Amino acid sequence: MMSARTIGVALLGAGTVGSQVARLLVEHADELAARIGARIELVGVAVRRPHRHEDIPAGLVTTDPASLVADPQADIVVEVIGGIEPARTLLLTALRRGARVVTANKALLAEDGPALFAAADAAGADLSFEAAVAGAIPLIRPIRESLAGDRISRIMGIVNGTTNYILSAMSSTGATYEHALAEATRLGYAEADPTADVDGFDAAAKAAILASIGFHTRVHASDVHREGIADVSAADVAAAAEIGYVIKALAICERVVTEGGDAVSVRTHPMMLPRTHPLATVDGAYNAVYVEAESAGRLMFYGPGAGGAPTASAVLGDVVTAARDIVAGGRGPAESAHAELPVQPMGEVPTRYHVCLDVEDRPGVLAAVSGALAANGISISTVRQEGGGADATLVLVTHMAPDAVLAATVARLSELPAVRKVTSVMRVAEEA
Amino acid sequence: MMSARTIGVALLGAGTVGSQVARLLVEHADELAARIGARIELVGVAVRRPHRHEDIPAGLVTTDPASLVADPQADIVVEVIGGIEPARTLLLTALRRGARVVTANKALLAEDGPALFAAADAAGADLSFEAAVAGAIPLIRPIRESLAGDRISRIMGIVNGTTNYILSAMSSTGATYEHALAEATRLGYAEADPTADVDGFDAAAKAAILASIGFHTRVHASDVHREGIADVSAADVAAAAEIGYVIKALAICERVVTEGGDAVSVRTHPMMLPRTHPLATVDGAYNAVYVEAESAGRLMFYGPGAGGAPTASAVLGDVVTAARDIVAGGRGPAESAHAELPVQPMGEVPTRYHVCLDVEDRPGVLAAVSGALAANGISISTVRQEGGGADATLVLVTHMAPDAVLAATVARLSELPAVRKVTSVMRVAEEA
Repeated sequence: MMSARTIGVALLGAGTVGSQVARLLVEHADELAARIGARIELVGVAVRRPHRHEDIPAGLVTTDPASLVADPQADIVVEVIGGIEPARTLLLTALRRGARVVTANKALLAEDGPALFAAADAAGADLSFEAAVAGAIPLIRPIRESLAGDRISRIMGIVNGTTNYILSAMSSTGATYEHALAEATRLGYAEADPTADVDGFDAAAKAAILASIGFHTRVHASDVHREGIADVSAADVAAAAEIGYVIKALAICERVVTEGGDAVSVRTHPMMLPRTHPLATVDGAYNAVYVEAESAGRLMFYGPGAGGAPTASAVLGDVVTAARDIVAGGRGPAESAHAELPVQPMGEVPTRYHVCLDVEDRPGVLAAVSGALAANGISISTVRQEGGGADATLVLVTHMAPDAVLAATVARLSELPAVRKVTSVMRVAEEA
Repeated sequence: MMSARTIGVALLGAGTVGSQVARLLVEHADELAARIGARIELVGVAVRRPHRHEDIPAGLVTTDPASLVADPQADIVVEVIGGIEPARTLLLTALRRGARVVTANKALLAEDGPALFAAADAAGADLSFEAAVAGAIPLIRPIRESLAGDRISRIMGIVNGTTNYILSAMSSTGATYEHALAEATRLGYAEADPTADVDGFDAAAKAAILASIGFHTRVHASDVHREGIADVSAADVAAAAEIGYVIKALAICERVVTEGGDAVSVRTHPMMLPRTHPLATVDGAYNAVYVEAESAGRLMFYGPGAGGAPTASAVLGDVVTAARDIVAGGRGPAESAHAELPVQPMGEVPTRYHVCLDVEDRPGVLAAVSGALAANGISISTVRQEGGGADATLVLVTHMAPDAVLAATVARLSELPAVRKVTSVMRVAEEA
C-alpha cells in the first residue's frame, strides 16, 4: 500500500559514495517506492564545490549543509562526508530535531558515538551505520539484531582493503612493503596520504564500533590498541609462508576472562594466520569478518569492503529501513551499552609470538634462548633451526603469554651473546 | 531504560531447537532484559509428550497449543515444531490477534507464506523467520533490510547440511552415494528417513523463501525446480575432481532476462563448482550463501546451517528484535512482493553441461559427437579424450544453452553408434 506522503532525504557529501547514493535514489526511485510504500525524494545535496557535480540537478546542490540538515523536509539525513567536524555538529542538529540519520562515518562513531546515540534517543530519532564498517557487507545489522539474543565471544576481521591489498601483494610477489604501497597508490587502492590505512587508524575506528555493538559496551577509538603494517617486512612474510601461514592486518575484538571479571580486548595489528583459516584466503581489496558466538558458533561475512557503489548499497539499505520505519511507525535498535565491560590493556592480552633469530652456529644456542624464555615464564610451542655457519636461523613459536611479557622477553633475546639479530617478530593465531 | 512491562513468549515445540530456545531464555534472562529494555517471560511451552521435558518448569508445559497461541499474555509466539499443520493454523491464530510470530518453519513459509504475511499485515502483527534458512547465519535480515536498497541478481547457496555432508564425504573418500548416506545416518547428520534432504525438498523450500525475499516476488515451493543428490555417482565426483571442480547441492535463485522481460529462475540441483569458487570449500554440515547484487557486488555468508543452539541463536535474535519493537513501538519489514516476476521454467534456464562418454576408439568419434551437439545449436567449450581401446572416454563441457535442449541432446548422444555409454552428466558453473 503506497503512502500519500513523500520521504525527504538530505545528502551530505557527493564524493565517491555520495554520488552513487544520489544516482541510485533517482535511478531506482520506483523500485524503492514499491519496497517502502512511499516515495523517496532527494531534498538537497550538500557539497563543497558545486561546479563538480553536474550530474546532480542544480536546484538540489547546496554549499550550506547547516541549513540542509535543519530543513524539516529532510526526514532522513545521509552523511558521507567523513571526518569529525563538521559532520558531528551537522548530525547532532539533525538528530535533535528528530530526523533519522544514516552515516558511513566510522571515525565519528568511534570518537563520539555515544553522544550521537544520546541525541537520537532523546528525540526518538534513529542512527544507523551499516556502511561504516566493511562497506557493502551486512554486518552491523546482523550483529545488532540477528545476534542480539546470543553472546558474542570474538569478532576478527579484515576491515581495511588498502592494507589487505598491500599484504596480499607482498605475499604473492615477495615485494617489500614500500614497493607494495607504491603499487597500491598507483592503482588507487591507497590514498596519496595512506596514514589512516597503513597506520591502522581506519581499522581501529572499525574495531571500536564492532566491539561496542558486539559486546554492548562503549569502546572509544582511543581504547583500541593500534599497530599498523609499515613494519611488516618481506622477511616476516617469507617466515609466515615457510610454516604455511599468511600475514593479515586484523581488527580483533574478544571477550576475555580476567581475575576482575569479564573484559574486552580490542586491537588492530598484523598477525600470522594459518592458510586453513577462513580469513587467510581473503585477498586484495575484499573484506571479511569472522564472528564467534556462544550459540551461533562460527560465522563469516565476506564482500567488497569499500568503493562507491558497494558502500552506497549499504547506505541505501539503511535509508529504506529508516523510510519503512517512518511509514509503519517504529525505530531501529537504540544504543546497547549495558554490559560496560572494561577494556583490557594490550600488555595483559594473551598472545603468541613467532620469532626468527639470526644465531651463532654452535652448541648451546637453543639452551640459551629457551632458558631466557623460560626465565620469563614463556614456554615454547615449536622450534626449528635452519641453515648453519653465518646463516644459522632459529625459528620459534611461543605458547600463549601476556603480550607485554612476550614483547619484553623477545627484546631481551637480542642481548644474548649467541643471538646476532632478531629478524622477525609477529603475533600468530592459535591453530583453528 | 527498563520498561515496567514484561513481554510474554509462547513457545510451540521443545525439540532440538525449542529446548535450546527455552534454556537460553532462562539462562540469559538478565542479559536479554538489558538489551530489550523489558523482561522476557516464558508463558508456556506446547509439547506433544510432556513427560519428556523435565528440564522445563512443569507449570509451563502444555499439550494444548491452540489455547497457548490464543493467550493474550503471549506477545510473541515462537514456532519450532515444523510441518504445515497444525503450525499454520496456530500461527494464523496468533497473527490474527496481533501477536508477533517468530518461526523457523521453512516448509510452511514456502507453502503458505503469503497467507501468513497477509494475516500479519491485517493485524499490524509481525512475522520473522531468520532461523528458517541457513540456521545461525544471519541471511534473512540482511536480504530483507541491508540489501533493501540494492538489486539482487543472484543467490546461490549450500543450504542443506545433510546433502553437503554426503557430497563432501563422497568427494574426500571416493565413497558411493549409498555408503556416504549410510555413514551420515549413523553419525546423525541424516535422518532415518532422509527424503526431505536428499530429494531436495528442504533446499527447495529454502530456495523459495530466498527467491521471494530477494526478488520481491512470491515464489511457492512448487515453483522450484527440484533435483536431489541420489543420482550423483562416484564417477561424477571423480570426473569433477579431474578438472579441479567439486559437486555441491545448491539452491539457486537468479534474475534472468527473457524476451518477455525479467523473470526469476529458482531451482535446487547438484552442480559442479570450480575449486576456486567461494562455495567450493564449504564442507561438511556447514552452510554458506553467496549473494550477488548490482551495487554491493559479491557477498558471502557462512556458518552452521543447523543444530539446536545455532538455530536457537537465530530464533532469539528475532525474539529480541520483536521485543524491542514492542517496547519502542514499531514493526519489522512487511512482505515485499511488488515485483511479481514470473518464474522461468527449468527447460528455458541457460545452463552448461559437463558430459563424460564411453566411446569407440576410432577416428570420427569427436566429429560425430560434436556434430550431434551442433545440430541442436550447442557449442562446445572444452573437450578432451582419455584412454584408448575399450577405455576410451570423451569428456566435454558445453557452452550455455537452454537446459531442456541440453538434456534432450545429451540423451540422444547415447544413440550414436560411436557412443557406448553416457557415464556422467552434470550441470557445471561458469568460471568465476
